[in-house]
Amino acid sequence: MANYNHNILNFRGVIIDHVLENINGGDTLSVKALVKSYNHALNENRNMAERGIQLDIIRHIMIVTKPSDHRLIDSTREVAIWLIESYHQIHVYIDHNFKNDYESVISEHENYKNRIHFWSTNETRENIDLIVTLGGDGTVLFSSWMFQRDVPPLLSFHLGSLGFLTLFDFDDHRRVLRNVIEEGGVRINVRMRLNCSIYRNNKKEIDNIDFNSEPSESFQVLNELYIDRGDAGNMLEMILCMDGCQITSIWADGLIMATSTGSTAYSLSAGGSLVHPDQNSILITPIAPHTLTARPMIIPGFKKISISVPFTSRISGWVSFDGRNRTSLALGDTIVVTASTYPLLSICRKDPYEDWFRGLSQILNWNHRIPQRPT
Amino acid sequence: MANYNHNILNFRGVIIDHVLENINGGDTLSVKALVKSYNHALNENRNMAERGIQLDIIRHIMIVTKPSDHRLIDSTREVAIWLIESYHQIHVYIDHNFKNDYESVISEHENYKNRIHFWSTNETRENIDLIVTLGGDGTVLFSSWMFQRDVPPLLSFHLGSLGFLTLFDFDDHRRVLRNVIEEGGVRINVRMRLNCSIYRNNKKEIDNIDFNSEPSESFQVLNELYIDRGDAGNMLEMILCMDGCQITSIWADGLIMATSTGSTAYSLSAGGSLVHPDQNSILITPIAPHTLTARPMIIPGFKKISISVPFTSRISGWVSFDGRNRTSLALGDTIVVTASTYPLLSICRKDPYEDWFRGLSQILNWNHRIPQRPT
Amino acid sequence: MANYNHNILNFRGVIIDHVLENINGGDTLSVKALVKSYNHALNENRNMAERGIQLDIIRHIMIVTKPSDHRLIDSTREVAIWLIESYHQIHVYIDHNFKNDYESVISEHENYKNRIHFWSTNETRENIDLIVTLGGDGTVLFSSWMFQRDVPPLLSFHLGSLGFLTLFDFDDHRRVLRNVIEEGGVRINVRMRLNCSIYRNNKKEIDNIDFNSEPSESFQVLNELYIDRGDAGNMLEMILCMDGCQITSIWADGLIMATSTGSTAYSLSAGGSLVHPDQNSILITPIAPHTLTARPMIIPGFKKISISVPFTSRISGWVSFDGRNRTSLALGDTIVVTASTYPLLSICRKDPYEDWFRGLSQILNWNHRIPQRPT
Amino acid sequence: MANYNHNILNFRGVIIDHVLENINGGDTLSVKALVKSYNHALNENRNMAERGIQLDIIRHIMIVTKPSDHRLIDSTREVAIWLIESYHQIHVYIDHNFKNDYESVISEHENYKNRIHFWSTNETRENIDLIVTLGGDGTVLFSSWMFQRDVPPLLSFHLGSLGFLTLFDFDDHRRVLRNVIEEGGVRINVRMRLNCSIYRNNKKEIDNIDFNSEPSESFQVLNELYIDRGDAGNMLEMILCMDGCQITSIWADGLIMATSTGSTAYSLSAGGSLVHPDQNSILITPIAPHTLTARPMIIPGFKKISISVPFTSRISGWVSFDGRNRTSLALGDTIVVTASTYPLLSICRKDPYEDWFRGLSQILNWNHRIPQRPT
Repeated sequence: MANYNHNILNFRGVIIDHVLENINGGDTLSVKALVKSYNHALNENRNMAERGIQLDIIRHIMIVTKPSDHRLIDSTREVAIWLIESYHQIHVYIDHNFKNDYESVISEHENYKNRIHFWSTNETRENIDLIVTLGGDGTVLFSSWMFQRDVPPLLSFHLGSLGFLTLFDFDDHRRVLRNVIEEGGVRINVRMRLNCSIYRNNKKEIDNIDFNSEPSESFQVLNELYIDRGDAGNMLEMILCMDGCQITSIWADGLIMATSTGSTAYSLSAGGSLVHPDQNSILITPIAPHTLTARPMIIPGFKKISISVPFTSRISGWVSFDGRNRTSLALGDTIVVTASTYPLLSICRKDPYEDWFRGLSQILNWNHRIPQRPT
Repeated sequence: MANYNHNILNFRGVIIDHVLENINGGDTLSVKALVKSYNHALNENRNMAERGIQLDIIRHIMIVTKPSDHRLIDSTREVAIWLIESYHQIHVYIDHNFKNDYESVISEHENYKNRIHFWSTNETRENIDLIVTLGGDGTVLFSSWMFQRDVPPLLSFHLGSLGFLTLFDFDDHRRVLRNVIEEGGVRINVRMRLNCSIYRNNKKEIDNIDFNSEPSESFQVLNELYIDRGDAGNMLEMILCMDGCQITSIWADGLIMATSTGSTAYSLSAGGSLVHPDQNSILITPIAPHTLTARPMIIPGFKKISISVPFTSRISGWVSFDGRNRTSLALGDTIVVTASTYPLLSICRKDPYEDWFRGLSQILNWNHRIPQRPT
Repeated sequence: MANYNHNILNFRGVIIDHVLENINGGDTLSVKALVKSYNHALNENRNMAERGIQLDIIRHIMIVTKPSDHRLIDSTREVAIWLIESYHQIHVYIDHNFKNDYESVISEHENYKNRIHFWSTNETRENIDLIVTLGGDGTVLFSSWMFQRDVPPLLSFHLGSLGFLTLFDFDDHRRVLRNVIEEGGVRINVRMRLNCSIYRNNKKEIDNIDFNSEPSESFQVLNELYIDRGDAGNMLEMILCMDGCQITSIWADGLIMATSTGSTAYSLSAGGSLVHPDQNSILITPIAPHTLTARPMIIPGFKKISISVPFTSRISGWVSFDGRNRTSLALGDTIVVTASTYPLLSICRKDPYEDWFRGLSQILNWNHRIPQRPT
Repeated sequence: MANYNHNILNFRGVIIDHVLENINGGDTLSVKALVKSYNHALNENRNMAERGIQLDIIRHIMIVTKPSDHRLIDSTREVAIWLIESYHQIHVYIDHNFKNDYESVISEHENYKNRIHFWSTNETRENIDLIVTLGGDGTVLFSSWMFQRDVPPLLSFHLGSLGFLTLFDFDDHRRVLRNVIEEGGVRINVRMRLNCSIYRNNKKEIDNIDFNSEPSESFQVLNELYIDRGDAGNMLEMILCMDGCQITSIWADGLIMATSTGSTAYSLSAGGSLVHPDQNSILITPIAPHTLTARPMIIPGFKKISISVPFTSRISGWVSFDGRNRTSLALGDTIVVTASTYPLLSICRKDPYEDWFRGLSQILNWNHRIPQRPT
């Protein structure tokens, strides 16, 4: 339970004296085993980043574009028809908003009928083997939002400018698709998502949230959730807890809880570091904090963080999840954030490292020299 | 081999087309196995952070203080004699600079003679079961430096003000030592160290460093290594490579390669984020970089990073390892950095998280409110 | 006229060739005269900062406290009655919200009746010789807001903790007031305010704002105005012009236009520098800007800056003036900012420099050492 | 006298009580006169920035290039001969390092002999009417360094890429020179320089520096002076005083004291704001400061700032002036900095504002949009 009514640090009293009592039964390691575990974990993480992945046979491909961007109708249809014609086993799933555009095609080619399907956002879609996105990073975020549980591997094409999440040039789409479908061997960047649960404190009482109960709402985010002051002109007060224990209170315009994938997005604007997506981290980045000592902070993704708007706050807050599902946070409401068990699997152009450094260089103009300081 | 003679990004050409050729044999995973590995790794890391550790029986205790701080002589002797008198099985190892101070004690108590030993920095010390430090964070860094390979568990006492690495108040030393020696159950913060190898490019030729050869020097650092321009007034040019591939060049006053443990030290001064020590990360933090886009960057510890001073640089550089072993870097010299297989094991006061947040609060005045902005 | 429909830098074409044509008639200086002017201006500014000021005889004193903070009723009455009793020539002006608290006093002491007056915020108050504030910096901002044109000298007492604008301890109020009233010699920090005018673009047409016309609203701010995105989750697009010429466009959470006095308030949270109030500057500080190169910028106060929300923006903005008068900014609306001719005159405790450095030290804990980095 | 032996803030005790005693005689202003002075100063500063300047008749032109960059020989000779041939009254002054290159020209054209002169750095040069620089910002800094007292107006050409101090494209040099010489009407950016005096504390005693005595060395800087730790690996301790009163102590890698002109150079790398050169300011920017609260600070140029390395420092420091005259600072040595009475007069391309904003845009890529954050 979050002690979000406390204004000062309130560390649990237990210190070294009673460690053994606090450790259940035989669940201890020796020092040697601990060092071995540490080295094993390092190696496992290295392997996961570098290893090749063998995709299953691909039958069902979902194409996602920016909702209602009608300029993408032609590109989508081009990909869909090429897939149908090139691979007899493949079914494609198109945004149902584009349904009309396929009527003539389907009526002309009877055999297309059974292999072109239409999806809408409120359906389950469990049989998809591959997501193909056309558009910008927002389209990948939209895909992530549609798959709140398991996400099929995702192949992303940009139409113009490279994004951190949209790695492939649409001009190469046939070659790349052919490779993925026929060879099936890829490298995958396993991108941790954050599981965000909202607990509403309707009773307006302190300390009455039961975090073991079902949350009011729950979202998986790929980039970040952010809390802000909405249209109030004042600063927002927030209480930060970890594993139910209050860490600090924050006065700021807002607070960003980002994944490493999100480190190149909003968190960067607010002063956060660039963190490689292989780091399964939670980035806690305050927006215009009131104190000079409030630096961005990075903790392991497996920790459980909660943020509350305390009853002492003058204003209520707002929260957004990957820029969606914006909702208000009343006094006492709490959001609990932790690593999701459902990561997003984005297919690499080269590998998770070159892809990322290429992005830093080409998207952020990272570290390009400006020959100003005379030497 | 580091292509540190290239001035621009030089990503390896191979992209998705040939992934399978680049992956050796049967070493692939299915998508399901990948997600399972991801979740397994998260759980393993969580366990490692929270689990209790059962120490081996403690017989050999090494006491380390700030070299040549003679105010610590009395405290050291107090601990040493109390240990000898309280535990018949225990041997203590004292800095040989203090040897004279024990002559009378040893001559009076014949049985002390065999159980008080003296160490000097140039000896191997393989039988130590526990390091006890008295002093500040610098003393812990000094201990880390003395154990370039396996490090015994370390228990750190401060004499006055809390440090990130010195968690226990010396006033409590009897209670804490009794607990560690008699109970043996502790929590341990496994702190990744960085293995730093210097390769000298004596031939003044490009691309002739063989990174599989033995390096000229090699150090394990707990906080950071930093490269700087020394007494030259100019900016230093550095080339950054990962796994032998050039990522970028940096013009700056210098560059810090820190561990997460070091994120509260020099890296913080240069604008780095606060990173919890459980993140096995390399923090790459430029010092006063020449470009506005050069943000601090964080990558997984298991990657191999190298930094070279290129032949195009006007000046040579300097490098320090945890503030020690300062040496110059000639044009062409290269430092290779990667996670060490020999972490430092610091015994927690409560657990790796509460200890760290307590430090942020008490040492950095982290996020303390300054009631300035009128609302 | 602001060309806020242009997306790129649009510098006026005329360069050095036609300087003389662009300079009217005989209005030129020689190089020698220019250097003389420069040195004269430096000296004048130095004098203004250090010189003593002789106040006029003080007859009418207005007491301002935080609106509706009833804890201040007693302190206010104490000061008011002491002034009336100590100086026969002095009239005091009290917030009319406190009127009831003076009924018994006035009925008991007939002669108080004519010398205790009550003010409300919507009255003109031209005869005031001295403002005395009790409370925090917000009370000084409130006083500034009530005097949109000439402001009488202001003497500020804090009741507890020092603020940048509240320099005197209330415990010393009799001694300080006696000194100011009887001696009349003070040092004054002349604090530039910003004149902010809102031009509404009702016609929804481009380029149709006539900046020579009367603005819709106009405010003097002491700390800052800030534009933000209100409750929209998206970034705000803003166009910045100087003297009617577009400088740049900004994508951010918002933008702060601060005075040097405001450099220790909101601008500091958003990454601005600390600027001494004697610098008559406009600080342009973006909040969480979208680009890494958008650094805080400082320009002379005498320039005329305008900010518009362009028609290409997806969302409208909001603007606040010293945290007050919050209003929305529709697409096309423009705010013009320049140095006010009505500065705020705050009476110094020692002089404008010691007062400020004391504030940095005591309020911001500026540069207090944290003995963390081991050396 | 700098009380640089004090470790804590030590504000002079005098407060408001004795202001009048501290103000000499009749040297006071009324409040009305103060406000009038304030508005007069604003107007004067505005005029100085916008006014046209009439140059004297130009007879003696000094050409400055990067010392010993022999690629510039041809460009220099081209300009020199064109000037000689086009204007019979003009004399040109060439770097004597290039003397040999003019022998044949002079021998062929007898009349050139009297009008081509050669300068070396250790000569006085009082008759120069115009400096023409070819090269980068470093060449302008070099020119500034050669004129430690009055500086003639300076016209700067870049050969390739625009710099903040090198505004004109060499391709336009004939048109621009013709305009300046024949019309004589220009706008001038009056750039404050800093007068920096080193006082050596040879006696190794505290408080024995007489700041009214002649300093050991003295320099005018256009961009900045910076103090750093040289080749020591430790932090440098510095004491900052204003008008002889200690403000604070700083632990850092170093400290930059920059002009507004220098705000786009080293100070920017260390986190300083962009300050328009019309602001006659001193920017105090610490390099990697040890405390989180040490923000860059900006104060009026007319204040007198001193920095000392105190006797408590473990290491001595180094100081550089516009990157030149690097010298060590022993414990007790002090540098006094204040606005120079000899500003640099750089001829504008358009005016001091458009020139600067063009630089921000083209050199720093200031605020260019990176379309990353999905909205």
